Amino acid sequence: MNGIYTDLAAELRELSPDIEGVVEQTETDGEIEIKRIGILDAKAARLIGKAMGRYVTLDARALTARPLDLFEAVETRLSTELLKLMRLDIKNCTALIVGLGNRGVTPDSLGPRVVENILVTRHVKQFVPEAFDFELPGICAIAPGVLGVTGVETMDIVKGVVERVRPDRIIAIDALASRRAARISTTVQLTDAGISPGSGVGNQRAELSLESLGVPVIAIGVPLVVRAATITRDTLSLMANETGLHADEEKLKLLAESVTEKQLDDMIVTPKDIDAIVADMARIIANAINSAMFGGDLERVRSLIA
Amino acid sequence: MNGIYTDLAAELRELSPDIEGVVEQTETDGEIEIKRIGILDAKAARLIGKAMGRYVTLDARALTARPLDLFEAVETRLSTELLKLMRLDIKNCTALIVGLGNRGVTPDSLGPRVVENILVTRHVKQFVPEAFDFELPGICAIAPGVLGVTGVETMDIVKGVVERVRPDRIIAIDALASRRAARISTTVQLTDAGISPGSGVGNQRAELSLESLGVPVIAIGVPLVVRAATITRDTLSLMANETGLHADEEKLKLLAESVTEKQLDDMIVTPKDIDAIVADMARIIANAINSAMFGGDLERVRSLIA
Amino acid sequence: MNGIYTDLAAELRELSPDIEGVVEQTETDGEIEIKRIGILDAKAARLIGKAMGRYVTLDARALTARPLDLFEAVETRLSTELLKLMRLDIKNCTALIVGLGNRGVTPDSLGPRVVENILVTRHVKQFVPEAFDFELPGICAIAPGVLGVTGVETMDIVKGVVERVRPDRIIAIDALASRRAARISTTVQLTDAGISPGSGVGNQRAELSLESLGVPVIAIGVPLVVRAATITRDTLSLMANETGLHADEEKLKLLAESVTEKQLDDMIVTPKDIDAIVADMARIIANAINSAMFGGDLERVRSLIA
Amino acid sequence: MNGIYTDLAAELRELSPDIEGVVEQTETDGEIEIKRIGILDAKAARLIGKAMGRYVTLDARALTARPLDLFEAVETRLSTELLKLMRLDIKNCTALIVGLGNRGVTPDSLGPRVVENILVTRHVKQFVPEAFDFELPGICAIAPGVLGVTGVETMDIVKGVVERVRPDRIIAIDALASRRAARISTTVQLTDAGISPGSGVGNQRAELSLESLGVPVIAIGVPLVVRAATITRDTLSLMANETGLHADEEKLKLLAESVTEKQLDDMIVTPKDIDAIVADMARIIANAINSAMFGGDLERVRSLIA
Repeated sequence: MNGIYTDLAAELRELSPDIEGVVEQTETDGEIEIKRIGILDAKAARLIGKAMGRYVTLDARALTARPLDLFEAVETRLSTELLKLMRLDIKNCTALIVGLGNRGVTPDSLGPRVVENILVTRHVKQFVPEAFDFELPGICAIAPGVLGVTGVETMDIVKGVVERVRPDRIIAIDALASRRAARISTTVQLTDAGISPGSGVGNQRAELSLESLGVPVIAIGVPLVVRAATITRDTLSLMANETGLHADEEKLKLLAESVTEKQLDDMIVTPKDIDAIVADMARIIANAINSAMFGGDLERVRSLIA
Repeated sequence: MNGIYTDLAAELRELSPDIEGVVEQTETDGEIEIKRIGILDAKAARLIGKAMGRYVTLDARALTARPLDLFEAVETRLSTELLKLMRLDIKNCTALIVGLGNRGVTPDSLGPRVVENILVTRHVKQFVPEAFDFELPGICAIAPGVLGVTGVETMDIVKGVVERVRPDRIIAIDALASRRAARISTTVQLTDAGISPGSGVGNQRAELSLESLGVPVIAIGVPLVVRAATITRDTLSLMANETGLHADEEKLKLLAESVTEKQLDDMIVTPKDIDAIVADMARIIANAINSAMFGGDLERVRSLIA
Repeated sequence: MNGIYTDLAAELRELSPDIEGVVEQTETDGEIEIKRIGILDAKAARLIGKAMGRYVTLDARALTARPLDLFEAVETRLSTELLKLMRLDIKNCTALIVGLGNRGVTPDSLGPRVVENILVTRHVKQFVPEAFDFELPGICAIAPGVLGVTGVETMDIVKGVVERVRPDRIIAIDALASRRAARISTTVQLTDAGISPGSGVGNQRAELSLESLGVPVIAIGVPLVVRAATITRDTLSLMANETGLHADEEKLKLLAESVTEKQLDDMIVTPKDIDAIVADMARIIANAINSAMFGGDLERVRSLIA
Repeated sequence: MNGIYTDLAAELRELSPDIEGVVEQTETDGEIEIKRIGILDAKAARLIGKAMGRYVTLDARALTARPLDLFEAVETRLSTELLKLMRLDIKNCTALIVGLGNRGVTPDSLGPRVVENILVTRHVKQFVPEAFDFELPGICAIAPGVLGVTGVETMDIVKGVVERVRPDRIIAIDALASRRAARISTTVQLTDAGISPGSGVGNQRAELSLESLGVPVIAIGVPLVVRAATITRDTLSLMANETGLHADEEKLKLLAESVTEKQLDDMIVTPKDIDAIVADMARIIANAINSAMFGGDLERVRSLIA
């Protein structure tokens, strides 16, 4: 492991801009920059270090000032991009929302907090179908917890639910790790390539994907931490460049190891106001999902299931 | 439904003390009263309104003053009674702890809060078996949420996990409803008869039991609410008795219905300091389970998985 | 104490509709009913059991279904009524928001939760005045806690802050007790008559008012609990009326006392979903206060102090 | 500012071991190392960068494994050291516990969480003196919040309370910043030199001390964060040493500035399990304070005020 860790396709692309089989497109929508990266084949996936698929990164630097109108613009855009990746008739589908992460660890609680704000309808459709006189998807939502707290693989819990619910799509939400502190709270990544739970804060576990679950998995992630070791490594690299020392890679590696004391392995770099940031991002994502699922019927659904 | 609702075998026994096939035994252990009720056959179960099985009620009125030494006495006793109901060699078993209820509703959050404090070892035994040089059970723990929040039946989530984990025993924890406010925070009920999630606060759902899951289910419950309608009904009954009006049952029923305005159906009666009570009871139960599972190795386990 | 307890002027008025010196006016604004009660003199205050002053009750039964558009309508109306009661030039004032109640007791946590969502500007105006190139009030906000948790009278903490901050107005927020379960979550009461902390859930303490603090105090309250004893008493009264027993007041009182077991004194009746209701109401009130304080500059202020 | 920031006298002493007027003594108590540093005069205080007074650092590396018996040993030792610094007859004193920090920011929530677990007695002694038939101190406890959330200087809130309560001693609890990640969760610092709120996570504010408040202030602090800039700076220093570049201090400084991107200023380095660590440390400190205040009467007090 080279000390530089990221879950963002956009950051991996910056590090290796010339891989064949990786394509990129950028557009802007007001204050939001949208970058679309496609990882087209298995070789490209191996080289860039991310599964094949489409990755959409929404970037809105102005989010740090927490302006309500930009929150709404991001919600709207996220909702649109999510629908595009889902590629099915929403009104007749069953979707399972999976909030990954550990509710008891602030930067890792994004997924469980999104789940708390999802409008679930599956049970009403099943047990009181007459409650709705219009078509709407059956939404259900779980927060399976993390291996260290449950003693059960996340994949095992999700698989059990998938076998019973038989959803048409899974939408998984998780906190991600980024290379750069500036990304935290300003970026959302969507992908149809699935997700490995715990890549942000914990240890990486078996991935949730079409291959492993038999159901297309859309993942929504927000970078909320930078690993402490990444910052040390970045500092060393920059200094090596500046001082012309980078020829001696071996020494640089040893240095990095001596600086990165064992304790840093368990350390994360995070903004002071991470509690508020997680709350904001959870609300944005839950609103975007609710709006993608129910569209113009959102308020009707909300009041019917209140 | 007669407006009097309780999940406690001990209270049902008080209401119908003469049912054949129900046996009862009482002992005391310091400030704790232990009542053992056996519901011996299907007919007795139907008459008393509780599944066949053994019910152990620990009652400690002095708990309302929150004395630490009584907390510890209750933990010890609860641990002993739990082991008795489990009836197997703990050191070689796999146990699944299921925290029922809704984390977002204070009096219903007992189960999820217990789960947060359980020492889980199953994953370590499975992935890093060399971490332990002594025998210990494989413990795992989930909080499946409630139907209204997940859109998935609790039973479906638990069944999926049971199929993968294949536990020898399930220990389910839930908040219960009592008839009498004085019970709240002073009583714990253990049973080997399984449990129907949500009987305390929500609506009753498919029961978790040996029959439904193929695994013995021990349930631990604490009365944390009284339904508001119960208090109204009790008031009316008492007054009817006092004033000699109880001959006219029909009128009494109409009265009860007019008093119990629709809104009361969703109302619960609960102590002002319910947040503190739930926290205390969750800690007592988690400590008792941890101690039953690991006995004298408890501290070794705690520091190994920290 | 007659077992019927309420903090709402509108409910006291219903119980004693004919007191001289109490005036009432009702209007509607969409789904919101607005009742204005004036208690005009000291005698009327003594008879009705509420301090002299103006009381505005906003009532929106449809709030139980939690429709977002009605949330917004209540915010707007609350903001308007608050400004009317404040009677001063907002742009040049200093206001102290006081969130009364106990954060650790769900139905009593309304005040502290409102405070968490208030935009405070006083310190920025004081230490970085150049941050704002437009006029705006200096807002500060405290949650003084409750006597049982701090060991200090709420009044003593507030007085100390008032002496240093010298605000032009105090806005105090607290949970209230109502007589009727149906009121919970649908009603907001505003008054310029001050407030006695803890009247809703705890024991009544020294009142915050113009008299005691030397600063006009606007109080915003939401009924979030009904005392359990109130329901018992109401049940008895109704039954007595129905059965023609009310002549014997003495017996009725004894009955009420025997039913209202000691434990009920500490019991409250509250909806199952009180956690969600408190969260919603805290957001509505904080939004209304922020909007009253900053009007059209709200988003500018939000992004400047983010 | 040189990028190396710490609130610990022990770390400042390591950086400048030869300052005249600073004395140091070390002892061990089982697994706890106790370091006593005295800053004897104003010149020494200026040179080392800490106020004059006594600083006691308890260090227990084994705390990272969270063993209950070590928790108890630290509680006992902390209690003893606190009593020594208080230097008065506890049974007849009034003490004000001040929990500094922001409850809404996990690593900064230590102080408010300690306050939640303090046994307060002042109001009972004042209003129901007959409740206690033995001598005990009058304890009260407040969490004044932080300037950015209240808009009021912490000092102003504390001063107001001090004027009314007239305590004999103030015990202030706050999260601290350390230079080294390894310190987090294993160290407690006590001092009779007062404290500047927010030095750990926020910006430093007017200090609470004998000079500013007229009452001796004992401060208890736990290092819970490392500033991100500190790690960058440490990395650079080490590398400069290794590579013989440290002659060129100017270049090093420019490098540090370019690496330490603006965003890092608001970033903290913290363990992944900070939520659990803060909960543990808050309990340890509250237990130690309760035990110092009430000694052998602790359980009597607890049950009397329950």
